[in-house]
Parts: sequence; structure tokens; C-alpha cells
Amino acid sequence: MKFNNKRLNISSKAEIGQNVKIGDDTIIYDNVFIGDNTIISNNCVIGEPSNDYYNNKSYTNKKTFIGANSLIRSHTIIYCESTFGDNFQTGHRVTIREKTTFGKSCQVGTLSDIQGDVEFGDYCRLHSNVHIGKGSKIGSYVFIYPYVVLTNDPHPPSNICSGATVGDYSQIAVQSIILPGITIGQHVLIGANSTVNKNVNDYSLVAGSPAKLITDVREIKSKENPKESHYPWPKSFERGLPWEGLGYYKWLKNQND
Amino acid sequence: MKFNNKRLNISSKAEIGQNVKIGDDTIIYDNVFIGDNTIISNNCVIGEPSNDYYNNKSYTNKKTFIGANSLIRSHTIIYCESTFGDNFQTGHRVTIREKTTFGKSCQVGTLSDIQGDVEFGDYCRLHSNVHIGKGSKIGSYVFIYPYVVLTNDPHPPSNICSGATVGDYSQIAVQSIILPGITIGQHVLIGANSTVNKNVNDYSLVAGSPAKLITDVREIKSKENPKESHYPWPKSFERGLPWEGLGYYKWLKNQND
Amino acid sequence: MKFNNKRLNISSKAEIGQNVKIGDDTIIYDNVFIGDNTIISNNCVIGEPSNDYYNNKSYTNKKTFIGANSLIRSHTIIYCESTFGDNFQTGHRVTIREKTTFGKSCQVGTLSDIQGDVEFGDYCRLHSNVHIGKGSKIGSYVFIYPYVVLTNDPHPPSNICSGATVGDYSQIAVQSIILPGITIGQHVLIGANSTVNKNVNDYSLVAGSPAKLITDVREIKSKENPKESHYPWPKSFERGLPWEGLGYYKWLKNQND
Repeated sequence: MKFNNKRLNISSKAEIGQNVKIGDDTIIYDNVFIGDNTIISNNCVIGEPSNDYYNNKSYTNKKTFIGANSLIRSHTIIYCESTFGDNFQTGHRVTIREKTTFGKSCQVGTLSDIQGDVEFGDYCRLHSNVHIGKGSKIGSYVFIYPYVVLTNDPHPPSNICSGATVGDYSQIAVQSIILPGITIGQHVLIGANSTVNKNVNDYSLVAGSPAKLITDVREIKSKENPKESHYPWPKSFERGLPWEGLGYYKWLKNQND
Repeated sequence: MKFNNKRLNISSKAEIGQNVKIGDDTIIYDNVFIGDNTIISNNCVIGEPSNDYYNNKSYTNKKTFIGANSLIRSHTIIYCESTFGDNFQTGHRVTIREKTTFGKSCQVGTLSDIQGDVEFGDYCRLHSNVHIGKGSKIGSYVFIYPYVVLTNDPHPPSNICSGATVGDYSQIAVQSIILPGITIGQHVLIGANSTVNKNVNDYSLVAGSPAKLITDVREIKSKENPKESHYPWPKSFERGLPWEGLGYYKWLKNQND
Repeated sequence: MKFNNKRLNISSKAEIGQNVKIGDDTIIYDNVFIGDNTIISNNCVIGEPSNDYYNNKSYTNKKTFIGANSLIRSHTIIYCESTFGDNFQTGHRVTIREKTTFGKSCQVGTLSDIQGDVEFGDYCRLHSNVHIGKGSKIGSYVFIYPYVVLTNDPHPPSNICSGATVGDYSQIAVQSIILPGITIGQHVLIGANSTVNKNVNDYSLVAGSPAKLITDVREIKSKENPKESHYPWPKSFERGLPWEGLGYYKWLKNQND
């Protein structure tokens, strides 16, 4: 019942791929490119114009690319001038500002708010209500949990915009804050409700406010299998990831060969 | 001005009770049952289909029940396969996923995000922007304040889903986090910005990150009446609750008789 | 493409100024006054009726004033009985309840939730997803960052509503909580993830949970210019503020002359 071609507002300057479904009440602005087999659900806005639109009569909307086989859930607003790899998925009511780049197979949860000028690698998963400040750079296989904030202003308010950097495979638990300019290594675990004000080395578990080193993640006992560590997590979790069915280490070996 | 019968999209397979009002631009999907005298405001989605809908041509929407005398405020999205008792109320832009059960007279505030597979008793009140993870079990008369998160994954990311349990009458203050599998007793008060990583006994005030026992809630002096404790709170607060006008202890005695 | 006069629902009892643009699918209720040159984008609700509307047949909507030269971005809900000074701006999906007063040139970010009975001075900036409890009083030039909560109930739940007070020029960093009845002075900086449970003097940097005095803000070294302090911030930051191009101290002297 979402796809009745009712009240669609699709620009003649948008390019829509083969077999794309667009839900009722969705608006697609100028210069949006949508890949094949993608679903844009109802009440979405794709290619939302920048602020300049409101007052500049010669405004031209910059290009927005949504990859193939994507699923944008209802009530999502995606500004122009961003690029999303294939298999992109969103929850409901996501907001993504300009100059955001997502690699392939990324997911952004309900109510998340991406402030723009942000880069993500592949296979990132943002849960509900994640806030990513401008200038953040996030690797691949990074999962971020609800109410996490990546900040960028070291002296609020200032003209400095110094985003955080997060390495591949790192996990940031609920309600944690990454302070401006911080670099987080690979395979890091940030505990819930942490405030990270120093760089974090690979494989560290840090927690607290300010966050302190607790242990190496490989020392954390698994609750399912107490003889082993759960981490590095890719050896223990593979749903929807490229090593699914193969195992992380075999996949990694294939990558490196 | 909300109820002009404009652009309604109500499935012929939905069952709408007597004297129900449905706001403009609202969508009611298949197999939704709405009790008498309920108001669904404008721009809501009731019975939102599960993910399977997007690709399964023989998809059938599971049943959703909204109790009588309820008020769903605008822009709320309720997935199929949930049940809401009578007198249910929401704020704006609430999202509730599948397999959620609410007892009677519950309220869910603006922007709250219920992830599904969750049970609530009666007379629960979730303030704005509460996030309830899958697998949580919440008693009756539980009030949860803004930006609280109930989590469920002890090893992010893992395949374990171990929701929290919250006993009757407990109160969880703003921005607190309940970690996976934790059990919170009855009449508990969780202070603001706490991270609860251990089970909490009845009548405890806990606070901090990680949360520590501060005192018995019955030792907390009332700011209005410093000779008495405010807690257990039902003796001091009755607006909209079943003991309103009677008093908690008399009501409790009647319940137990 | 936002302003096609499609599916507008504008009350005949609203007063719309000169050169106002109203986006598609926007609803303007009775007794809303919109100043000249203001833009209300698509899918907004302005003058949302109070709860009484749902059941009182003789309901009359109270007056709502939106100042001139304002920009309300899409999907914003503003209840009746509030007043917004000129040059007011919102992000997307903002919710503002009744009896809210904003001075001139204020901004409220995406997803922010103002609970009503709140006063703001001039030139306040609320970033995304800020939650302001009922009864709060906020001065001028106050900036509040994502996921900050101003609370008001000292004994959850109680019938006391004791909002916080925030002085001019103060800055409240991400995820901080201001507890009920707290007074924060002028030029204060509240660090990220703080829980403020005591009054805060002018020019203090406080941080932690509970928040403790760290230093005088004027002792904080600037990252751009380590020989100077960044604070008081108006000497270092002027974008969009009345001292832009003149300098804070000259402007202040002019104000006081």
C-alpha cells in the first residue's frame, strides 16, 4: 500500500534506475540519481536543497547518488550533494546533510542525524539516533549505537571544525561522546556512556568519562563461550557481512592474498 | 482542522471501531483493529508492514490492535503485530516496531523509539525520546525519562539479545542506560545519567556510571515536605493513576483484599 | 520545488504577512500570525492545537506569532500559544509546545523538543536534538549542543515543576543534564556529558557527573592561539551575532553607553 504513485513529486531532472519503487508523497529533487532496484519508501525527501535554495533564484541542486539495491525507509530526508554506495539502508526519519559519502552496504538507523561533510567506509551500521558531527571520518565495519555523538568544536562556539576519526571494525556503545579531533584506532570498543578525550589505540576497550583504558578487547571473556574472547568481533559475528559463511580469518586471508 | 477525510489511505482489511476519528494523510494498513472512540491524528502510519513486505509478493500483514479511547498524535509510525491496551497515548513522531505489547493506559512521548519484542504492563509513561531495545520487559507504573536507553547486546556486536527487566513502580531518570540482561526491582529510582551494570534491589536509589547504591528511596527527603519522604512515590503522586482521589495505600489494600 | 501551493491547509483565521512562502502539505491553524518575508517549508504544522482540541467542541486556538524573516524547515510542529521573534530559524522535525517565547534571531536544530512554558532571550542557538523541560528560563546568546536535557522534576514523578535558569552567553556541551531548579550564571561552559546538580557561578567551567568546578573559562588556552584564552567566547566568535564585524568589546561598550 506504499506504492500507489500518489502525490509523487519527481523532478524531470532526476535519473531513476530500472525497477525502482518510489512511495507515495515522496519528493525527488533535481539531479538525484537512483540506482537499479532501489526502494524509496513513502514520505521521503531525496536531494533536499541546500540553504541557498531559499533565496537564490538561480540555485542549481548539486548531484546526489543513491546506489543500487538500496532501501530508504519512510520519512527520511537526504540533502543533495551526497553519495551512497549500493545496498544502502535507512530506518525512518533519518536526516543526512550535504557532502556525506557512504561506501557500500551501510545502514543508518531511525532518527539518526548526519551533519554533512562526513565520510564512511563500507558495511557501517549506525543504530537509531546517532549524531555524526561535520568533518568526521569513519572507516569500514564500524558500528555505532544509539545516542552516540561525534563532536567537532573544541571551544564551543568557535570557527574550528575538527571531526573525529574512527578506524575499521571499531564499536561505539550507547550514549558515548567522541570529542573533537580524536582518533580512534581499529577494533576498538568504547563502553557505554563514555566521553573520549584522548586518542585510542587499536584493540583497546576504553570506558568512563573521561574514558580510560580498561583492557585489550581480546581479553574480554565471551558470555556465550567463557573460554574464548568475543573479540575481535568479526570472528564471532558475521550476519550480513562479507565473511558470512566463510569466517573472518579465511575471508581476511583471501583479501590479503 | 485535522479531520477532513483528506488523503486517507485506510485498508478495506482494517477494522475501525465506533466513533473513531482519523486525521488527514494517515495510512491504516491491512489487519489493523482500532477500538471505539480512539483518535488517530494526522500523518500517522498504523500497521506499518515488516521488512518482508518490500520483497515478498505474497506478504500478509500481521494483526495490530489499538485499544479503545486511545490518542495517537501526529506523525507516529506503529508497525504491525503489536497490541496496545485501552487509553493508549503517544506524542508526535513515535516509532514502535513489531511484537510490542502495552497494557492499558500507557503513554509514549514524542520521538520515542520502541525496537519491538518488548512488553509493558499498565500505566507506564515514557517521556520524550526514550529508546527501548528488543527483548525488554517492563512492569506497570514504570516511568522512563528522556534519552534513556535499555540495551540488549552484551558484546557489541553479537547474536545475543538479552533485554533488561524493570519492576513495577520504578523510575529511570534522564539519559540513563540499562545494560543488557539487568534486572531492576520494584520502586527503584535510577538517577540521571547512570549506567546500570548490576541488578538493582527493590526500593534502591542508584546513580553514577557505573551505578552505585546511594540509599533506600524511602530515605529521600521531600523538597515539598522535608519531614517526609517522597517515596514510595505513589503515596505522593496520583495524577491519572488508578489510586487518584483514593490514595495509594487504600487503593493497594483494595487490590489485595 | 517546495512551493507549489499543493495541499496547503491554511486557516482563514490565520494572518499571513507580505511575501511569505508556504511549502506544500503545510498546515497553518487558526490564529497564527506570520511576519513578512518568512518561509515556512513543506510538511510543517504551525499552531498545532492543544490537547483540549480533541474533545472540546468549542475549542478556540490560542494565538501564535512567528516573526518576520524567519525560516521554518520542513516537518516542524509548532503548537499554538507561542511567540517567536524575527529571524527565527529551525532545522527539520522540531517540536515546540505551548507558551514558548523566543526573542529575536534564535535557532532551533533538527529534532529538538521544547516542552513549553519556556523563555529564551535573543540569539540563542540550540543544536540538534536538544530537550528543554517546562519552566526553563534561558538568557541571550546561549548555545546548547546535541542531546542536552534541561529537567524540572526533583522527585520523579512529582507535581513540582522547577525549571532551570541559564544566564547569558553560557554554553552547554553535548549530552549534559541540568537538574531541576539549578541556576547557571553567565559565560559558563558546561563540559560534555555533565550532570549539573549545583548552581554554577559566572565564568565557570564545570564538568563531570556530578559536575565539579574545573577552572575559570578565561584560563582555558585557545587551540588556535595558545597565548590567549578563547573565552569569554564572544571575543573569539562572531558569525551571525550582533557584534559581527565590530568586535564584542566595542559592541558591548556601545550597548552600555
